[in-house]
Amino acid sequence: MQIIRFPSREDWKSVLERPVFDHSKLFETVQTVLNDVRSNGDVALKKYSLKFDKVAIENFELSPEEWSEAEKLISVNLKQAIEMARRNIWKFHIEQQHELPEIQTSPGVFCWQKAVAIEKVGLYIPGGTAPLFSTVLMLGVPAQIAECNQVVLCTPPNKNGKIHPAVIYAAKVAGIHRIFKLGGIQAIAAMAYGTETVPNVYKIFGPGNQYVTAAKQLVSLHDVAIDMPAGPSEVEIIADEQANPAFIAADMLSQTEHGVDSQAILITVSDKIIQPVLEQIELQLEQLPRKEIARKALEHSKIILVKNLEEAVEMTNEYAPEHLIISTRYYMGVAANIVNAGSVFLGDYTPESAGDYASGTNHTLPTNGYSKAYNGVNLDSFVRKITFQQISKDGLTNLSNAITLMAESEDLQAHSNAVKIRLDFEPEDEPFDNCTRR
Amino acid sequence: MQIIRFPSREDWKSVLERPVFDHSKLFETVQTVLNDVRSNGDVALKKYSLKFDKVAIENFELSPEEWSEAEKLISVNLKQAIEMARRNIWKFHIEQQHELPEIQTSPGVFCWQKAVAIEKVGLYIPGGTAPLFSTVLMLGVPAQIAECNQVVLCTPPNKNGKIHPAVIYAAKVAGIHRIFKLGGIQAIAAMAYGTETVPNVYKIFGPGNQYVTAAKQLVSLHDVAIDMPAGPSEVEIIADEQANPAFIAADMLSQTEHGVDSQAILITVSDKIIQPVLEQIELQLEQLPRKEIARKALEHSKIILVKNLEEAVEMTNEYAPEHLIISTRYYMGVAANIVNAGSVFLGDYTPESAGDYASGTNHTLPTNGYSKAYNGVNLDSFVRKITFQQISKDGLTNLSNAITLMAESEDLQAHSNAVKIRLDFEPEDEPFDNCTRR
Repeated sequence: MQIIRFPSREDWKSVLERPVFDHSKLFETVQTVLNDVRSNGDVALKKYSLKFDKVAIENFELSPEEWSEAEKLISVNLKQAIEMARRNIWKFHIEQQHELPEIQTSPGVFCWQKAVAIEKVGLYIPGGTAPLFSTVLMLGVPAQIAECNQVVLCTPPNKNGKIHPAVIYAAKVAGIHRIFKLGGIQAIAAMAYGTETVPNVYKIFGPGNQYVTAAKQLVSLHDVAIDMPAGPSEVEIIADEQANPAFIAADMLSQTEHGVDSQAILITVSDKIIQPVLEQIELQLEQLPRKEIARKALEHSKIILVKNLEEAVEMTNEYAPEHLIISTRYYMGVAANIVNAGSVFLGDYTPESAGDYASGTNHTLPTNGYSKAYNGVNLDSFVRKITFQQISKDGLTNLSNAITLMAESEDLQAHSNAVKIRLDFEPEDEPFDNCTRR
Repeated sequence: MQIIRFPSREDWKSVLERPVFDHSKLFETVQTVLNDVRSNGDVALKKYSLKFDKVAIENFELSPEEWSEAEKLISVNLKQAIEMARRNIWKFHIEQQHELPEIQTSPGVFCWQKAVAIEKVGLYIPGGTAPLFSTVLMLGVPAQIAECNQVVLCTPPNKNGKIHPAVIYAAKVAGIHRIFKLGGIQAIAAMAYGTETVPNVYKIFGPGNQYVTAAKQLVSLHDVAIDMPAGPSEVEIIADEQANPAFIAADMLSQTEHGVDSQAILITVSDKIIQPVLEQIELQLEQLPRKEIARKALEHSKIILVKNLEEAVEMTNEYAPEHLIISTRYYMGVAANIVNAGSVFLGDYTPESAGDYASGTNHTLPTNGYSKAYNGVNLDSFVRKITFQQISKDGLTNLSNAITLMAESEDLQAHSNAVKIRLDFEPEDEPFDNCTRR
């Protein structure tokens, strides 16, 4: 843990640096695998599953028997927990449905937006050390609300070719249609290009290791959309003298247990909480199963003492954290000035883990300072807003001077003609103007 | 023009192929320029402006004198046209403001979304054959409604170091803050990394040639967001027997005059309109100043005859056109089944050029089939939806079983501890729980 007191403004950039990995270093390797899957389909998928995941898979798709047996393998308590989380995520995301009313921008000119689900989406859920069934809910529930036609999920199987039953159960309650036992670059390639077994999709969501991230970036250049660029996960906490050091330590540790490249930043206006926070971190760290990971991540974590809350807010907006916990007496005032963050947690009883699992907000959030330009996954991530316009003959007459003059000033005569030819038309039969109103 | 009658479904893919350019071929060249600007700032900008745009620029930024003289250089009529377009674009985009109401997802658990403008955005406006001041409005007006703090615009100057006054005037009415005389790769690099003169931004918008497109793709991998991937522009028209061949021809020509890689597709259920459309194209083409460009683009344009409107709709959703004109008697019924398109134009009096300039919808739209996953630029393109959550002690108690059980099932003990430590806390002073309600 680094402790920095009153850094000068010129040093902010280096103080706020992240442990970022340059994915473009992997592009060549990753591109080879992508091309192979694109050309050779299932044969390549089998090859790379054996090579990277050390598992020989005959049938990638989860069978109906595997779908139904999952339900028997997890406890009633866990099912209830998943159901509660699902319900809260559903409640928060369904409110994000919003249809723009039809606007008459000029007399006879009617414009509107229609939210239409992306037809085919793919969700990637990493394997590795923990079965991230919470992410299945975070991606599956909004896809379900959006009513995407085809929602497929890829996740790497374990050595026995099995997927964790909690992942399957969460997929079931989130209405996911098909699951494939596929991980890594080959999973991203399969969803981007399709194979004999795996359907291609139009947008890929979900976290992953550096190879998955590089693969998502490469396929997004040409072939398929992705949720957002990815980097290591992070939390920032703003605290004043009333904040509870034990809570701060717990939040920093819950971030750092994610991975060795995670980062936890405490920005505080109170020098006197620093020592207690450090003591609490040591105390709580010892009891963690993942303490080795957390300890490594703490090496690039920081406690920064600043002059006042104004400076804390400015520094936060510069850092643009994925998760921001505001633990100050009057946190709503601080929150009002936050402009760059993924998700914000307010007050002493709102730990990040509440949002990670069950408050209802989405935990797929922009890392690496990307919250300056991106937001987290929400319902809009699964739809497109198609615009429509319907213009009557009188409406086009109203617009005609503006259109023809602007088009001709842009040297686009045919654009102008498309208006003139309609208004000059002297029909035997009047063209069918059924724009009376819908 | 290719005419294809009743293609079989297996041939749809090849029939609907686009004249796409693979931008990754340019990546090496483009990366060199990006790196140079990143390292050498204004010096590199001057070098590349001289090399690529053949102009020696001392001061990249438009001076106050240049800002004000533009107003005198364009006609009152054009000003009125720009003002009408601006007003309609404003009317349509301001309705897209939408704040999610606060949701109580469980007792004591309050979640909401706040739309916050991206602080710094950059707009790129190509130079080349035509001054695209309409695009200035399409990008500037939503940025203005979103209240982005800093909106900068880059556009290449002509040989005399000047920018077209209509571009400057449109920038003025759209509230753009600063204009820089910069084009091509170097403009994208300047906005992505910042130089001594040009501020960096968090998101870059706007069309451009293949080099600009490649530069936007490369900077989007690490450094800055972009509006969307780009490809050649296109229009598709669905027509039945009542459609007017002269109008169809005019719309196809207004698309093909954009560039030699543009594409116009007519999908029709009526064989008898095909010949009249071809005749009208020849007739109208002859009178166009840009007829050479249009003629080349017509070479990869197509007329496709299909069995019925159901097949026309299916084929349309497969093609996923940027612009779709529906010229059928009962166009609302056809429109209802369109799921992949950028912007849709309904009926005989709604040419694409209406949306290009003045109906109010945005003309920055997904090309190249990207409308399967992306929508056009809208107000949301300039904001992020930050999520907030505020939980009372009772609220956390309600969630605690779900959170701790799910976290522990994901092997994330510290996530569970962050909840337990709060609820187990036996304070001398109770932590400050001011979640009484905002």
